[in-house]
Amino acid sequence: MKLAIVGCGVVGSSWALVFARAGHEVTIYDRSPEAAEAAVAFVAAADASYAARCRIAVDLADALAGADYVQESAPERLPIKQALYREMDALLGANTIVGSSTSGFPASSFTTGLANAERYLVAHPINPPHLIPLVELVPAPATASATVTFVHDLMCKLGQSPIQLTREINGFVVNRLQSAVLGEAFRLVEDGICTPGEVDAAMADGLGLRWCFMGPFATIDLNAANGVAQYCENLGPMYYGLAKEQADPREWGPALIAGIEARMRETVPAQALPERRRWRDRFLSRIVEAKRAIGKELGRG
Amino acid sequence: MKLAIVGCGVVGSSWALVFARAGHEVTIYDRSPEAAEAAVAFVAAADASYAARCRIAVDLADALAGADYVQESAPERLPIKQALYREMDALLGANTIVGSSTSGFPASSFTTGLANAERYLVAHPINPPHLIPLVELVPAPATASATVTFVHDLMCKLGQSPIQLTREINGFVVNRLQSAVLGEAFRLVEDGICTPGEVDAAMADGLGLRWCFMGPFATIDLNAANGVAQYCENLGPMYYGLAKEQADPREWGPALIAGIEARMRETVPAQALPERRRWRDRFLSRIVEAKRAIGKELGRG
Repeated sequence: MKLAIVGCGVVGSSWALVFARAGHEVTIYDRSPEAAEAAVAFVAAADASYAARCRIAVDLADALAGADYVQESAPERLPIKQALYREMDALLGANTIVGSSTSGFPASSFTTGLANAERYLVAHPINPPHLIPLVELVPAPATASATVTFVHDLMCKLGQSPIQLTREINGFVVNRLQSAVLGEAFRLVEDGICTPGEVDAAMADGLGLRWCFMGPFATIDLNAANGVAQYCENLGPMYYGLAKEQADPREWGPALIAGIEARMRETVPAQALPERRRWRDRFLSRIVEAKRAIGKELGRG
Repeated sequence: MKLAIVGCGVVGSSWALVFARAGHEVTIYDRSPEAAEAAVAFVAAADASYAARCRIAVDLADALAGADYVQESAPERLPIKQALYREMDALLGANTIVGSSTSGFPASSFTTGLANAERYLVAHPINPPHLIPLVELVPAPATASATVTFVHDLMCKLGQSPIQLTREINGFVVNRLQSAVLGEAFRLVEDGICTPGEVDAAMADGLGLRWCFMGPFATIDLNAANGVAQYCENLGPMYYGLAKEQADPREWGPALIAGIEARMRETVPAQALPERRRWRDRFLSRIVEAKRAIGKELGRG
């Protein structure tokens, strides 16, 4: 299959690696030739044979020519996306499908009214997609169901883990779940219950240890003898009580943010942030690898 | 140090293993002698030398005699806790401290007015504590700060990861975070956005892969070039918008629960739940082991 990358910063480069690693020819385009070169170098750093499958396109038309699928990862600004999709719409082959890496904009906001609107959708990864398999597929009202099915199958073949949202919703699924956690995390710190580091420990030394291999429903399903319905009967009223306490949306004010920033800088000073990001990526890579090996041995179920 | 277990179902047995594994003498008491025997057998299954440090107490007084710390894991019913703490209060040595494994009751609800109230607190684990290190320490208003410090130090020495809440709050930290996630998870399914399995994938193949080694604050701190304050400036308004959409606490109604139950049973039939729990514990054990090894190599930071 012929795959294309349009826009290759951090996210686009990671997608290029996903595509080439799975054995596909990848055409790479960015308005900045240096960015396209950097993307190929990023792929080459993983494996030189992957980079051999990558070709830098001379322009957008060259990138799209003959592509079965295009992953668009342009900068996260709506006017940029709108202009880019108008441009792509005029160049698009009859069977080419385009997924956007956007985390924030519904596809309808930059594809409505375009000739090929039925072949555009959001395919939002969690960064970096070459390490984190989850991809959210979010159709616009104009997106054809065949488009969603095509991208779903492709993502599975690439080794990613796609989920299909039935319709556009603010934050999609991933950022809505993250929003729920961050909302409570900031609330706990603002109310003086515990420190940011203690919230982080509650997750990383607690809840996250199960959530990295089974989600919230699978978790509670095993926490009552007869499964999730019994769990809900036993604990539904308790959670409803907590939900009512948590139903006060709060803006993150300057004092709260400054306090959290100060706490975080005690652990990771500003100058150590780049190294900490490299540490995160190494740790993430190793955890994903370990999880895969364990799943192979014990079954993913 | 001399440690005691009072009440040894699944949680108490796991605590016995935590204590014995760390090299301590453990006295085990349960109203049911069979339960106490089963706890010792559970410890022995991990390592016979651990079980050699365990002694079954003949009665509650025997269990408490000379104990530095008692982990109470009696059934999660308030009248049972209240009666038990009255009984322990009359028997307690001058320096013994008692932590309760309760997930649902603040310590004040079963220790207020007792003679030794300053030496009681909640020490809530995530089950099973021999695999999951997080322990929430929640003082009642009457709990002495020296009590919290003692249990914090003890938990660190045992290899657990304690967090100290400043005061009692419904759900403590762990169940409040879980409540936030479950609230949104049920909302997404009820609104027909995606299936329970897709929410689970969003966590287990997505967010959870980072959250198992860095919490929500550490995660966002690395997701803006200059750290968490910049992240909040960039994305605070977006999250506030989502928080307002998520501020509708919902009861989990019978139809919603039945739908989720049916979906979960497609993946794990009712008769397969016990085996699935054993799979979870094996997977959890291996993930925790892998995380520890990776942290040893790369640093926990």
